[in-house]
This record gives sequence, C-alpha cells and structure tokens, in this order.
Amino acid sequence: MNIILLSGGSGKRLWPLSNEIRSKQFIKIFPKEDGTYESMVQRIVRQIRATDADARLTVATSKSQVSALRSQLGEKVQICVEPSRRDTFPAIALCASYLVDVEGISPKETVVVCPVDPYVEQPYFQAIKELYELAQNSATNLALLGIEPTYPSEKYGYILPASKDRISGVRSFREKPSKDLAQEYIEQGALWNGGVFAFRLEYVLEKAHEVFAFKDYQELYEKYDSLPKISFDYQIVEKEEKLQVLRFLGDWKDLGTWNTLTESMEEKILGKGVLDTTCDNVHIVNETDVPILAMGLKNVVISASPEGILVADKEQSSYMKPYVEGFQEQIRFALKSWGSYRVLDVEEGSLTIKVTLLAGHSMHYHSHEYREEVWVVTKGEGIATLDGVEKKVRPGEILKMPKGMPHTILAVTDLELVEVQIGENIHVEDKKLHELS
Amino acid sequence: MNIILLSGGSGKRLWPLSNEIRSKQFIKIFPKEDGTYESMVQRIVRQIRATDADARLTVATSKSQVSALRSQLGEKVQICVEPSRRDTFPAIALCASYLVDVEGISPKETVVVCPVDPYVEQPYFQAIKELYELAQNSATNLALLGIEPTYPSEKYGYILPASKDRISGVRSFREKPSKDLAQEYIEQGALWNGGVFAFRLEYVLEKAHEVFAFKDYQELYEKYDSLPKISFDYQIVEKEEKLQVLRFLGDWKDLGTWNTLTESMEEKILGKGVLDTTCDNVHIVNETDVPILAMGLKNVVISASPEGILVADKEQSSYMKPYVEGFQEQIRFALKSWGSYRVLDVEEGSLTIKVTLLAGHSMHYHSHEYREEVWVVTKGEGIATLDGVEKKVRPGEILKMPKGMPHTILAVTDLELVEVQIGENIHVEDKKLHELS
Repeated sequence: MNIILLSGGSGKRLWPLSNEIRSKQFIKIFPKEDGTYESMVQRIVRQIRATDADARLTVATSKSQVSALRSQLGEKVQICVEPSRRDTFPAIALCASYLVDVEGISPKETVVVCPVDPYVEQPYFQAIKELYELAQNSATNLALLGIEPTYPSEKYGYILPASKDRISGVRSFREKPSKDLAQEYIEQGALWNGGVFAFRLEYVLEKAHEVFAFKDYQELYEKYDSLPKISFDYQIVEKEEKLQVLRFLGDWKDLGTWNTLTESMEEKILGKGVLDTTCDNVHIVNETDVPILAMGLKNVVISASPEGILVADKEQSSYMKPYVEGFQEQIRFALKSWGSYRVLDVEEGSLTIKVTLLAGHSMHYHSHEYREEVWVVTKGEGIATLDGVEKKVRPGEILKMPKGMPHTILAVTDLELVEVQIGENIHVEDKKLHELS
Repeated sequence: MNIILLSGGSGKRLWPLSNEIRSKQFIKIFPKEDGTYESMVQRIVRQIRATDADARLTVATSKSQVSALRSQLGEKVQICVEPSRRDTFPAIALCASYLVDVEGISPKETVVVCPVDPYVEQPYFQAIKELYELAQNSATNLALLGIEPTYPSEKYGYILPASKDRISGVRSFREKPSKDLAQEYIEQGALWNGGVFAFRLEYVLEKAHEVFAFKDYQELYEKYDSLPKISFDYQIVEKEEKLQVLRFLGDWKDLGTWNTLTESMEEKILGKGVLDTTCDNVHIVNETDVPILAMGLKNVVISASPEGILVADKEQSSYMKPYVEGFQEQIRFALKSWGSYRVLDVEEGSLTIKVTLLAGHSMHYHSHEYREEVWVVTKGEGIATLDGVEKKVRPGEILKMPKGMPHTILAVTDLELVEVQIGENIHVEDKKLHELS
C-alpha cells in the first residue's frame, strides 16, 4: 500500500506536553511489551507495518516536525514537508505530486490518506487495506472510512450513507453539528467522518490542477505559501459524486484532548507520581524529574513538562486553548533529528541548556554574533571542531566559543553537554551556518 | 522584652515548599505593602518589633535552619542552635542557659517563649506583652496564653481555666482530644494551648538542673545529643501549680497545613499561574518558573517547587506526611547564609547546579576528593581563589577545579555561576575545608 500520514496540528489542547514544535503525536505515552513507551506516530507506523510490512509510508507534515519525526521514526518513512500550514487539500495535493514527480510512482497507483492521531487497534488497518483495494479495483473515484458513532459528538463531521450495507454510496455530508442534531443524524444511520480517504493519485492531481496553476511538485512547493487554505473535505469529498463509504465498527478514539487521551492510557501514572487512596479517576503524566503527589481528587488530569503544569478536570480540559495561547511560549525542550535539548536556566544575560547528541550525529557547524558559549562535556565521547580545529573530547572537557567562532561537535558515543550562553542579546535567530571543510 | 522564638519542625505537611532543610517558616508567602513578600519568621519578627522596638529576640533552632534564618533575618536576632532535635523542654532549657551564661542576662529576668508559626495580628503581641508583665510582676511561676477556640479541633491541647476571668488559674490540662471530647471541653470553657509561655529564666534553669546534670550552657550543649526527648508542656506546664492563663480572643491561625495556610493568603495565586473561570476556592503557590494552569477544580491547592508538585484537596492535604516521607529526598534548592543554590540537572556521573552569592559573601575554601568542578560565571563580579591564586572574574569566566584543588569565590557584586560537577561518586559529603592564608 501507499499511505500518506497527515501529521499536522500543534495540539494546543494537550498542553503542556505539546506545543508549537512538539506536537501531541510525539508524546511517548503508550506502553510497549518491552517496558518502554511509544508515541502516537510510532504506534501507528508499527501497526501499519504489522498489516502490510511493505507499505510505503509518506508523512505530510510541517518543517517544525521533521526533527521529531526523524528522531522517532528514523529513516523508515518518507517525509513530504509543507512549507507552511495550508489545510488538508493543499497538503494532500503536494504530497501526491511528491509521490509522482519525486518518488516516480505511477499516477494510476492508489494511495490512502490517514490522520496520525486516532487510537485504534489492528482491525482498523485491515479496514484501511480493504479501502485501498476498493479504490483500486472499483470505478469509484474516492473511498472513505465511516466510523460507527458511539455517542452524539459535536466534534466530527457526519456521513449519511445511501444504504445500510457495509460498503455503500453516500447520500450527503453534514458539518460538525450540535448535540441534538448529532443525535438525529445517528438515528438516521450517519457515520463519523474519520478523515481516511483512498483514491488514485491522478484523481487528486487532476483536481489540484483545476484549482492551482502548477507544472510539477517543485513549482507547487515553491508557490505553496500563496495557496489558499482549503480543506480536502470541503474541496473534494463533499463535491464528488462517485464515492463510496466503508463502514468501520471497531475501536476508534480520537486522542485530541486530555479527556480522550487518558481514557486510552493503560496506567494511571506515567513518570514520577503518587495518587493517595482517595483519588478517583485521576491521571498523572509527568515528564519532569520531580514527583507529583495527588490527594483527594476526582476526574482530574495532572501533567507536568519543562513547559508548564496542567491540573484540570478532565472534561474542562478540552477548553484550554485560549488559556494556553496566553502563555508566553518559550520552548524549553525539543526533540531534534540529532538528539534533544532542554533549557535548565534562564537569566537576563545568560541561558543554560543541556544538549544530548545521539551517537554518530552532529549539529550544524555554526557561530553566533551576539553571544559567547561554553560547553562542558558531561557524558560520552566526541570530536569537537572549533574554528576548523578538531579536538577529541570526553567528560570534563571545557570548550569556549567566543562570539563569531564557528563550532560543532560530533558524538562518537551518545554524548551530553551543558551549554552556557552569555550575552546581552540571546536569541535563537542569532545563528550563522558555516561550511565545514 | 526577652523573647525566645521556637523555630523547629521540618514542616513535612507543607511539602513541596518545605523539606528537611527548608522549613515552612521560610516560605515567602505574605504580601507586604511594598509589593514584595515575607515569610512567617520575617512577619513575626516585624510584628514583635512593632510592639516592642527593643525586644531582644533569640531564635532556638536546629543547625540546618541557621543559614535560612541569617538569610531572612540578617544579624538582627540571636540564634541558639540545638545540636539535635530533643523536643521543647531541652530546647527551652538550652536557650535559657544560653541567655544567662553567654548573653549575661540576669536569671531574674523574664522571658516569653513563642512558636514562629501562628498567623496573627498586632493584638496578639499586645497580649504577649501583658503575659510578660504578668510573669514579671506576679507571684506566678508560669504564665500561659490561652486561645479562645473557634471550632472543636483535634490538633491542640486544651487548658481548662479555673474561672472565666481574663486572667485566671488553671484547673487542668487536656491532651489532643477526639472531636467529640473537644466539643465537651469547649462547652466547659476550655482554651487552646497556644504554646506561649512566660517565666523567669531562673525558674526554667532550676527545673532543668533537677532533670539534667550540667554546670553551664557549654556543658548542656555538649551533652545535648544524649538528653531525652521531653516536651515543655509535659515536663513543666502540666506539673506546675503556680500558673496563670491569659485569655486571648483575637485572630489566631496555626499555619501548619495547606488548608490553614491558604486561608491566610490574600491572593489566590503566588508565582506564575492561571485559574480558569470554573475554579472555586483554588490556590496556586508556584516557586518554579513555568506556568500552572488550573481548570474546573474546587477546594484544591496546587504547589510546585524544585522539589516536587502537590495537587490536593485542601482538607485531604493534611494527611500528606506518610506520602511525602516516601519520596527520596534529594534537596534541589537551598537558602544559605551566603546566598542560595538550585539543582539544574542530575545525571549519572554529573550534577549541574546554579549558585547565587550575595555581594560581600563567599563560600568556604574547600576541595573535593572524588569530583572535578567547572564554574562558568554568568552574572556579577567576584574574586575567585584557586589553589591560593586570586583571580578577578566576570561573566563568561571559566574556572576549572581538578580533584583535590582548594577553591572559593568572593562575590564583589551579587554573583551567579553555573557549576558542573563531574565524577563517579558525587556526594555532598565529599568536601574538605582548607585554611585560606
């Protein structure tokens, strides 16, 4: 199968674990058999491979997620980068032209588009495989997955199928309704729109050429910032007449809020935490290294990360967006393709961070105009390059980089260092890249 | 007046703001008129001075609190250090002999013993002054403050006065009772024992000599560790016949639990935090530099510090002691007489801390056997001494101390530095003091 995974959204409703650069799909929250944890995106990729070991996976995502994707998935997937956020129709069109023009896949081939964030079990991927075959073998232009609703949700679009058959045509679509309307739709036999679409690549490319003027992938990529924001549902799905819906009855949960996320957690506590005996339906997700003690609470989620601390009634937590938008976002932790960094201390005139580099990786060779930096290596072995001069380093090694001096470090083994930045004007944008000769 | 302030207790019930070395009396939680905050101990000293500007204050406390006391009160008070915790009778006896033998105060002088942790207003100190005069001028051996009870508390001892007069003799004492018994006592006119005692120094010294064999303060200090743990109430108060109780009707709150502490807070939020509109009777006390978001909670206290995070129903929070005792206490923040330190990062083989030195202060001249250290100065100016060699330092200066090298730094202005410790065996006890010639 060709599968496009849509990995978008900053997931503000899962603050403090998600933020502009670390989206909810990267939170390692699901226990694996070996005692470690995996993220939504790791889980879904593992599940797809279990259904189809040879599936060709392409993740459509924004630039800010590339590091985290590479860190969690390695080189096992293709990544199609959206230069900016332009909603699902431009994103899918860009990815389709990437597959044809860059990857050389035939436009006759079928592809399935899936969101990364539903919490599902293996039968879901069986249904996706069926959907793929449906789009491949029938005269249908577009095949959709319809999720059997479990309650009258106001969060989803509804699909009214033409019949009660497992596979049927579509009578009509309904936008996110009120609770009462949702109840009515369900009584009429409506399904949730799960955001899963299967089609031939040429179908979407043809539609894209009708709306955007572009020759090939490269040109679409270059003009991407100027494209209008249009959803795939609105532009394609709701206008198409030759479409079919496949009814899916298995487990399906959208993990977009703390309420639904904690429902899918197998353990009450992730990280350091204690619930007293009077706590009832309380979850702790703690990414800091200090303990959380919860006493006498009911239906509450507590989450702590280097960005902040949330304590919320589970239902109430879905309304957090406006509050979180009010916080001054200073990114205090980030996954990078080469490892990660964490802010340890912020002061006027200085910033101290902890940098972890994975073995074999190095950062860009770069310098800063307005700040000097000091590295103290605390773990592992590496090779630092300062102003063109290489030096082997081990724990205890101190490296001093005055303003303007280009520097980098290559991790020979996994490497950790404390970096102290000193200057009047410390800013992430004060960074100049250099060629390493 | 001579006043002995008893500053004991580790205050485990106010975790995570208090711990073994930082007791509840040092939490800066009460807003002052100038917009800054003061701690319990700062507040009570300010209030005593407002009643009697010339009061001679002596704080009886453990070694672990000396740095914090000096940091918050400066040199304005005497400190009588208890070599170990031995309950209130030995502590008061030691302090009484300190006043006579070291400070040269006449044994005929009267002294008032007060706990540091009640939250009170100025009339309380007027009552203390009256109590002082009562003990000074009457034939009474011991004068007590009786607090008019406001509810049948199980936390306090009860005093049954001989009459309903403002000053009266005492009929009997009652240990901490059950709720029903407490209600009965109150109906019989009982008062709470507020732990405030006034007496002539010679009175307590005589009692002490009856129980402990010692010549003077020095000898009592030296054998202190071997003294039995006895409370002043049990050993003295309940056995004394010539005593009087002064009835106090004003505001009086014991700030020993989060429930009572938050009742005394003028603001719902201390530090960075947001309460959504559906929160009711929720308090946030946040000593970290990341925001706390609280949503949909009722009667809850949230407190975060470098040691941990508490989220508790206010009533339930008074039962936290056994849970907190289960946490592996690694001190992550401490006030010192010379400034403070905060742990930034803990790894196997390294520890990174932030050290703040107040202008004019320096740390001990010391070395470590099992670890090397690196200092990166991030703020201020100072003079470092490494292996006897002085060096002026400013932000950006790097100092490297191999194992065994004696080192110290003197802050010329307020000074901050990041210290990275590297070694196989990092432990606070790996510290050897040296003479600075």
